[in-house]
Amino acid sequence: MEIRSITGGVCAARGFKAAATAAGIRHGGRDDMAMIACDVPCVVAGTFTSNVVKAAPVQWDMKVVMKARAQAVVVNSGLANACTGRDGMECCEAEALAMSETLGIPADSALIGSTGVIGAPMPVEKLVNGIHALSAKLEHSEAAAEAAARAIMTTDTRVKQAAVELEIHGRTVHIGGMTKGSGMIHPNMCTMLAYVTTDALINRSCLERAAHAVIEDTFNMISVDGDTSTNDTFLVLASGLAENPRIEVGGIDYDLFCRGLHAVCEDLARQMAADGEGAHKSVTVTVDGATGVQAARTLARSVVSSNLVKTAMAGSDANWGRVLCALGYSGAEFSPDLVCVEFSSSEGSISVCEHGSPVDFDEDRARRILDTDAVEIHCHMGLGSAAATAYGCDLTHEYININADYRS
Amino acid sequence: MEIRSITGGVCAARGFKAAATAAGIRHGGRDDMAMIACDVPCVVAGTFTSNVVKAAPVQWDMKVVMKARAQAVVVNSGLANACTGRDGMECCEAEALAMSETLGIPADSALIGSTGVIGAPMPVEKLVNGIHALSAKLEHSEAAAEAAARAIMTTDTRVKQAAVELEIHGRTVHIGGMTKGSGMIHPNMCTMLAYVTTDALINRSCLERAAHAVIEDTFNMISVDGDTSTNDTFLVLASGLAENPRIEVGGIDYDLFCRGLHAVCEDLARQMAADGEGAHKSVTVTVDGATGVQAARTLARSVVSSNLVKTAMAGSDANWGRVLCALGYSGAEFSPDLVCVEFSSSEGSISVCEHGSPVDFDEDRARRILDTDAVEIHCHMGLGSAAATAYGCDLTHEYININADYRS
Repeated sequence: MEIRSITGGVCAARGFKAAATAAGIRHGGRDDMAMIACDVPCVVAGTFTSNVVKAAPVQWDMKVVMKARAQAVVVNSGLANACTGRDGMECCEAEALAMSETLGIPADSALIGSTGVIGAPMPVEKLVNGIHALSAKLEHSEAAAEAAARAIMTTDTRVKQAAVELEIHGRTVHIGGMTKGSGMIHPNMCTMLAYVTTDALINRSCLERAAHAVIEDTFNMISVDGDTSTNDTFLVLASGLAENPRIEVGGIDYDLFCRGLHAVCEDLARQMAADGEGAHKSVTVTVDGATGVQAARTLARSVVSSNLVKTAMAGSDANWGRVLCALGYSGAEFSPDLVCVEFSSSEGSISVCEHGSPVDFDEDRARRILDTDAVEIHCHMGLGSAAATAYGCDLTHEYININADYRS
Repeated sequence: MEIRSITGGVCAARGFKAAATAAGIRHGGRDDMAMIACDVPCVVAGTFTSNVVKAAPVQWDMKVVMKARAQAVVVNSGLANACTGRDGMECCEAEALAMSETLGIPADSALIGSTGVIGAPMPVEKLVNGIHALSAKLEHSEAAAEAAARAIMTTDTRVKQAAVELEIHGRTVHIGGMTKGSGMIHPNMCTMLAYVTTDALINRSCLERAAHAVIEDTFNMISVDGDTSTNDTFLVLASGLAENPRIEVGGIDYDLFCRGLHAVCEDLARQMAADGEGAHKSVTVTVDGATGVQAARTLARSVVSSNLVKTAMAGSDANWGRVLCALGYSGAEFSPDLVCVEFSSSEGSISVCEHGSPVDFDEDRARRILDTDAVEIHCHMGLGSAAATAYGCDLTHEYININADYRS
């Protein structure tokens, strides 16, 4: 029951087409709208921001997901359509209507995503024109998937895609996705747009359960800056075109599908953390020996979110005291006297704290280990058997540069 | 019942002396130890970090405060004496013993504070020698108070002192304090050392109640970087030498004393926020119209702690969408459609969001208002009558510079 990494992003699965276009929302003629559409109606599941202030497209998508069927997604970058009042919802309605007309699908199966500046008015006509242009360009190809993944980027520096294939009763099932992240990235739900497509035949409640299970230890374990956005969206669309025996909750097929979905989402989550705004290196925090999974997640997220840990990592400074400090204010209970901390990377591994006390370690070696583009912090709590991993990045000057004048 | 601002810091109140010395803990021969001592035993109350990882001096002070009597405080900067295991507690015992011998006070009435690098071993001999030097230099003077306030600074750029006087039944009562802050500043309890002295005659439970009431809307409403340290300490010592009728809980005298203590702590809290690591400007967030005081505090703290709000303020960018976003993920319930946001400073005031929707405002004017060294963000929730204020600062390049290589 192997899971194989493949290419193709959101077009890896049968039945899905993608497209990108420059609708004139952003400057410089760069692509700023993307579309994913399926040949057939899909089962859909999703998770959205926990922020009380929800962008209009989030409110729209929540209604679509409740009805459980969807066939297309349109996304724009540049403007968030958040804090836009009644006009914001009217913009979504106009977009869905345009998708309905041009794709020949019901308006309430059209999903909408937006990312960018909050509180700026939406250029409805440009969006509607963009939808017409996108519909004419839809293609089932790797190039189209990549173009779509590129069009939804804001301050991202790299396109983020992932895909896998696996066998269910002799049928090949594909799962692929794209995401944008960068700033306003924080758990619950980690600020981002993420779209996953699959050709698995799966029932609705089963897809929903799988999506919720997977998000908890992938996207919800990322933190770039502690800000949970108004637009976070994670959607999974399943076309059923793999024609496998329908996946039901429980059993080997469900477990295998969950593993495949997890592989795609974890890959996307890692890419997102590594490309956090201004990041020079990815920082992965693993906590084990915790009393429970929730405690392990809380501890790992607290360390990966700490500005002081993040700046220490930026300076390749083995300042493990800040790690203990961040564990300490996480809200989870533990015994400081039992905690051991190690730093590791491609350059090796070094123990810096044992049983809550300093270890006499080689500072030069620690600096070499931390002076790489992917650093891991391991915290052994010495209490139980639960573990969790959180994904983040360092905090650098570029973060300030990007965010001190984002709108201009 | 007037409260008058005066000079003198921790030496404003009768009976208190202070001193500073260079004990060789920090480089460059700068003062790195401070002492406050009283002619008579004092009633003491205190609050300490909520971090599970508590520095040794915090654990020591908690025991002293439980016994309710104290007569002197010694503080060192440079090293935190946190995550130092058994050696850390032994260091505290040696310091208390030295204070007992040289000041002629019981060892269990000696309070200890440390601030600096976590996890580094403590130079016990230097500390003990420092205590002897301090004891010989103790003085009841403004110069001594200022020297003490300067010696406890780490990355602080300014000395932070405040003091007031007030009349209780014809007797003049003084309350004065000093604090250090800068990094690792976040509510619960806001990361800092703060020492307040008063000559008020007040009983123990009354002083404790006043200290806890005042901290909630002063020190606990500051945020610099979201990191709650291992060493946070707030102590109030009352000598009783003003010879006022003893203050009991309830009544006009208690209320007046609380107002005086509040004035000192609010002043110190504002100074601490404005001198946050790398800060170019102070950012004050006021929330009103909330359903309750707890909700108002949660909302105000969420906005003042947001990295995206803080970087926007660094860039003088009127990006009010980030303010709404931070209100939204605070955890407090509210109606986004009712929220109004204004920015103000010495340059005037501008409304940027009304009832959750954009206002067509003059961007140049907004920039002029934000391009000052003290900015206020007002959030009107439109729901109730509760209000709260949180104190913070912008997030700049200097924060990264200071923290990317703190230890060297």
